[in-house]
Amino acid sequence: MNIGIVGGGAVGLLLAAYLGQRHKVTVYTRRLAQAEQLAKHGVSLKKNGETVTVAVQARPFAGAELVEPLVFVTVKQYDIAAVCAQLDSFRRVRTLVFLQNGMGHLEQLSVFADKNVVVGVVEHGAFKLDDRAVVHTGVGKLLLAPLYGSPAMAAELSGDDDFPIEWADDWERILVDKLIVNAVINPLTALLQVKNGALLDVAPYREMMAQLFDEVRQVLPLRDAGQAWQRIVHICRNTADNYSSMYMDVANGRRTEIDAILGYVLKQGEARGIALPLIRFVVCALKGKEGGNADG
Amino acid sequence: MNIGIVGGGAVGLLLAAYLGQRHKVTVYTRRLAQAEQLAKHGVSLKKNGETVTVAVQARPFAGAELVEPLVFVTVKQYDIAAVCAQLDSFRRVRTLVFLQNGMGHLEQLSVFADKNVVVGVVEHGAFKLDDRAVVHTGVGKLLLAPLYGSPAMAAELSGDDDFPIEWADDWERILVDKLIVNAVINPLTALLQVKNGALLDVAPYREMMAQLFDEVRQVLPLRDAGQAWQRIVHICRNTADNYSSMYMDVANGRRTEIDAILGYVLKQGEARGIALPLIRFVVCALKGKEGGNADG
Repeated sequence: MNIGIVGGGAVGLLLAAYLGQRHKVTVYTRRLAQAEQLAKHGVSLKKNGETVTVAVQARPFAGAELVEPLVFVTVKQYDIAAVCAQLDSFRRVRTLVFLQNGMGHLEQLSVFADKNVVVGVVEHGAFKLDDRAVVHTGVGKLLLAPLYGSPAMAAELSGDDDFPIEWADDWERILVDKLIVNAVINPLTALLQVKNGALLDVAPYREMMAQLFDEVRQVLPLRDAGQAWQRIVHICRNTADNYSSMYMDVANGRRTEIDAILGYVLKQGEARGIALPLIRFVVCALKGKEGGNADG
Repeated sequence: MNIGIVGGGAVGLLLAAYLGQRHKVTVYTRRLAQAEQLAKHGVSLKKNGETVTVAVQARPFAGAELVEPLVFVTVKQYDIAAVCAQLDSFRRVRTLVFLQNGMGHLEQLSVFADKNVVVGVVEHGAFKLDDRAVVHTGVGKLLLAPLYGSPAMAAELSGDDDFPIEWADDWERILVDKLIVNAVINPLTALLQVKNGALLDVAPYREMMAQLFDEVRQVLPLRDAGQAWQRIVHICRNTADNYSSMYMDVANGRRTEIDAILGYVLKQGEARGIALPLIRFVVCALKGKEGGNADG
């Protein structure tokens, strides 16, 4: 099968490396230099000290006409608007899989409502080493659910032990489940500049996590708050030694996904008149760190 | 006049340097090594690139009998209990001046209620360079008010242009005025790890400052909240290029004064049933940074 992957970040490269072992993959990048690197040398997947290199095709996304029937969109949520603006490029695509954090972008996906649209969450730990190398730091799964139409070609994909693919019926459930975890762990680790495990190991940080969770749960449609909390704790423990993506974004002076994650929760809450002082405070902290933190 | 100074931190050394120019000063330190340094070489005061060295006497506080009629206590608030526990040492002292941040320690001072007790706030910028050197980074004033008895010998002190001394009638007012500034600027700069000026210059940080102020003002007895806010902004601007003491404590892995400052506000609020989610959150953040932040 021919598969397109829009975005050459950690998730894009991880997908390219695993799917590229069985399919003909083309990576659509923002920068020409990255596309050239990938096309010339392939994508390198590093895991447990071993490196596998997988041949892929690659070209810049801007102005491209995507010829693959199945395309994964792996850009950050704040770049979804730019992808949607290039709607014509997807004329020949039949099935799109969107792998963004948050839920604020779902409305924008209605421009693709005549195609099969799948949304999913990536439960892997992955770290982009350079333009063509990704480190697979934690094996999880790719969890997918149809948003519009049928799963179509995406349903034909088979994962493997290191890269399992699972399907769910309820797209809202999988996105909310991921969002609540991201809404608590990511902003706190980024604000405090600590590894995920510190949120459990340092008692006052654990209390902060509980306080923030308490506000988030007022907004997100959780079936079982106790279960959601347990999942957060579980993920913190399993990724204790990892730095969250938002931590890394702040540490490297990059834009974070705070808008997509906690900003979305804040907006939802405000629309319903729920006071969310902590969420507002933490969103401000991350916005400040993104914007003008010359000291940080 | 013979003057004793308990504590060899930035404030203790600053007082020793200025008062030592006109009076016979003895500094009571925690560590013998510091007392030896001070007694041997004097205290060095650095200001605008110039250094003045002032001869002082010095000895360890533990077990000492203070013979000076007037004693300044400059230890951090969390060490006041240890000072009070050594009550016998102050048998011959007639007037005590306490220069701690916060207000939670005032109850403990009742053990000295048979003496003249003065409380005060230090509005200077000072930075301890080493055991016997202090940098005077910002000229402010020493503001004093009687708590028990009369100002007594303290009233005889005369300041100078670089070290003015002022008196106020209302001890609660001067402590609250200082506390509200410390409660907002110190914890935020320490949490965000930014200079004081960033709280004004970075719009989302300024919003955080306003949010935190909004909770603090619900607890502290402010006569004029607008004026208090203006004073915070004014101090932020005047010290824009400085790092707050709490920032420095966190950066250097030292214990902070969070308990004395925001912890006190939290307790006061709790006692009156006022919900203070942000204050609780920020107190936890600083407690965590003090305790177990192996990454920070």
